[in-house]
Amino acid sequence: MSIKKINGGTVSTPRGFKASGLHCGIKAKSKKPDVALVVSDVPAVSAGMFTKNRLKAWPVLHSMRVIKKSEKHRAIIANSGNANCINGPRGKDAVGAVIRSTSEHTGIPEKEILICSTGIIGVRLPVLKITRAMPRLVKQLSVRGGHRAAQGIMTTDTRAKEIAVSFSIGKTEIRIGAIAKGVGMCQPNMATMLNFITTDCAIKRPMLYKALRSAVNKTFNMMSIDNDVSTNDTVFILANSRAGNRRITSADENYRKFEEALTYVTMQMTKELVKDGEGATKFCEILVSGAKSLEDAEKAARTIANSMLFKTMLAGADPNWGRIAAAVGASGAIFYPNRLTISFDGIKLFSNGKYLISARPDVKKVLKRDEFKIEVALNKGRHSASFFTCDLTKGYVQINAAYST
Amino acid sequence: MSIKKINGGTVSTPRGFKASGLHCGIKAKSKKPDVALVVSDVPAVSAGMFTKNRLKAWPVLHSMRVIKKSEKHRAIIANSGNANCINGPRGKDAVGAVIRSTSEHTGIPEKEILICSTGIIGVRLPVLKITRAMPRLVKQLSVRGGHRAAQGIMTTDTRAKEIAVSFSIGKTEIRIGAIAKGVGMCQPNMATMLNFITTDCAIKRPMLYKALRSAVNKTFNMMSIDNDVSTNDTVFILANSRAGNRRITSADENYRKFEEALTYVTMQMTKELVKDGEGATKFCEILVSGAKSLEDAEKAARTIANSMLFKTMLAGADPNWGRIAAAVGASGAIFYPNRLTISFDGIKLFSNGKYLISARPDVKKVLKRDEFKIEVALNKGRHSASFFTCDLTKGYVQINAAYST
Repeated sequence: MSIKKINGGTVSTPRGFKASGLHCGIKAKSKKPDVALVVSDVPAVSAGMFTKNRLKAWPVLHSMRVIKKSEKHRAIIANSGNANCINGPRGKDAVGAVIRSTSEHTGIPEKEILICSTGIIGVRLPVLKITRAMPRLVKQLSVRGGHRAAQGIMTTDTRAKEIAVSFSIGKTEIRIGAIAKGVGMCQPNMATMLNFITTDCAIKRPMLYKALRSAVNKTFNMMSIDNDVSTNDTVFILANSRAGNRRITSADENYRKFEEALTYVTMQMTKELVKDGEGATKFCEILVSGAKSLEDAEKAARTIANSMLFKTMLAGADPNWGRIAAAVGASGAIFYPNRLTISFDGIKLFSNGKYLISARPDVKKVLKRDEFKIEVALNKGRHSASFFTCDLTKGYVQINAAYST
Repeated sequence: MSIKKINGGTVSTPRGFKASGLHCGIKAKSKKPDVALVVSDVPAVSAGMFTKNRLKAWPVLHSMRVIKKSEKHRAIIANSGNANCINGPRGKDAVGAVIRSTSEHTGIPEKEILICSTGIIGVRLPVLKITRAMPRLVKQLSVRGGHRAAQGIMTTDTRAKEIAVSFSIGKTEIRIGAIAKGVGMCQPNMATMLNFITTDCAIKRPMLYKALRSAVNKTFNMMSIDNDVSTNDTVFILANSRAGNRRITSADENYRKFEEALTYVTMQMTKELVKDGEGATKFCEILVSGAKSLEDAEKAARTIANSMLFKTMLAGADPNWGRIAAAVGASGAIFYPNRLTISFDGIKLFSNGKYLISARPDVKKVLKRDEFKIEVALNKGRHSASFFTCDLTKGYVQINAAYST
């Protein structure tokens, strides 16, 4: 199938979607955009996935309820700079007030509005700043507003993350658009960030959920920046049927196309998030192949990716394959050292238990690239899994040690 | 019970033990001590605990076999600068050669000799360097040699770690001595380092194992420097009965004294290891109390301790209690935000769900101390656990990004 990336595409690129973003005053110092709104012209079939952290922020708890109650939703209101989390019962009231204000100014019923927050934990949400900005935020809604919305949800992100693609179902062009933010407190356990996806595809809700889960499990759930799981992670997708295709109601050929395109979108967002990871300078795919089970492949890849020694080794561009082997051992995955093979962008440095020291200079060159793939072949079975991570640099420590509450 | 710290005490302080350490040439650049020997005059009851990493170094595999086969052992031979791990079958031969050489020059049967290595993974052990130095190493064995032995096992450690204590059973003075090394690839899953303990106490093997397991589970297994599990972790204890006490054969009052003293020793070694953690500037005890189960208390404490955001927060001395609450949530431990209380050296910053902002300046002062305790009260049950960790600094990244294979 051919998936086309749409130049300048964003969350408002699929038909029938508008978005906006602006500075309402939460990020008082930086004056950067801190609130975003995404709206569908008509009620859209919705699906959502949420953080597995037991401590969930107020907007997460609200959205989880709202998405269960109704099959369709029309709007996502989000703010950055404040997570509205573990800040007492007033945090719950704040969610209500923001939802009411959004409903009032957009004319969309409250139960069709989803909500997200991201930013500092434990601080009171300045509701009035958001509600006072609401008329402007609604007025600025536009099919070109996706970029501003992407800016409105950024925290330590250094750049906005957005994409839109198109593909065909029969003669109908379908579009999928997305915006996302990271880029700290990112460990793979559900979404680990905010990500809003829109599509004009007509699709039944169970199929939309199926596609979302599949895409998220292969992409967002297989990445890490640090080893922390956020309290506010949320992925939403809204499908408003405006493309006019025959509705996808089962896991047929058309469904597979949709799932493939959606996975492409979430994969691109995953790459963007990891590349913009706090202090990160490198993007690394870790492919564990030949595992006895999928679980083994995943846990080996995850343990390597989260190893601080591995991540600092990436920062130093040192081909210390011993740290990779030790991480595989620590993961509990079954393997035999004398069958283990480790290669870097195709160059073998450790092959069936033997260290190929002559490959070292070439591997060192690979590790100096911005983006590379490390394959760890266990040669024990036929399961494989890919995991995406970045290096651990002094920049990460700088950002997070200097971050002041 | 009164436990007395012996001034200048080390692994050769208990009666009937000698030790030595010197530079044999493995650390070719630094010329620092890289080999160590600890010997008991008479066969000593032994106990050992080993890394749970699936990838075990050759000396670990050897010592695991040897310690099962026989109840008593007399010597521990160890080297630093090379882990003798995942370096092919010659690594196994190397263990044999070092054991043979140790036996030849000490007159101790091979089966009574335990062996450890620590250092870089995947590189051939320079056996000849060790065997050639063996005559000198044996000749230098002395009751004052513990300090040199402690130096001989250091890797990235900045200082030797050693201790000896005495306590009484009836009128008999019992001594326990120890040396240890860290200080990277340190996650709590069994020993996470090398630690050799000696005692002149007379004690039956099952009681020695019971005491060792109890001490290790409360101390070494409750600490982390980074989140990596080593391939070479080993703890040995040798008990040679030279104190002359009535042998401890059951979990009686005397056993409890011994366990208490041993736990004191491993706790001191744990503190030394964490304080000397790569790049570390602070030592932090995390006490999780009021948990529904011991498992909950342990996993909450461990998740906080291993959170990179928490560890960088310590480096920055910022009272960001939200990161602590998020880590408790991520751990899966059961708690209610409105019952959660977080205090720093006794100063409450978050109390039953309320942020006490006025305490912030005092908490900031606590976080600037070299050593402090953070208590996280879940108020959900009566179980508690302590975990020991350090801050994550640019120094850690520097050491491990610059470390070259």
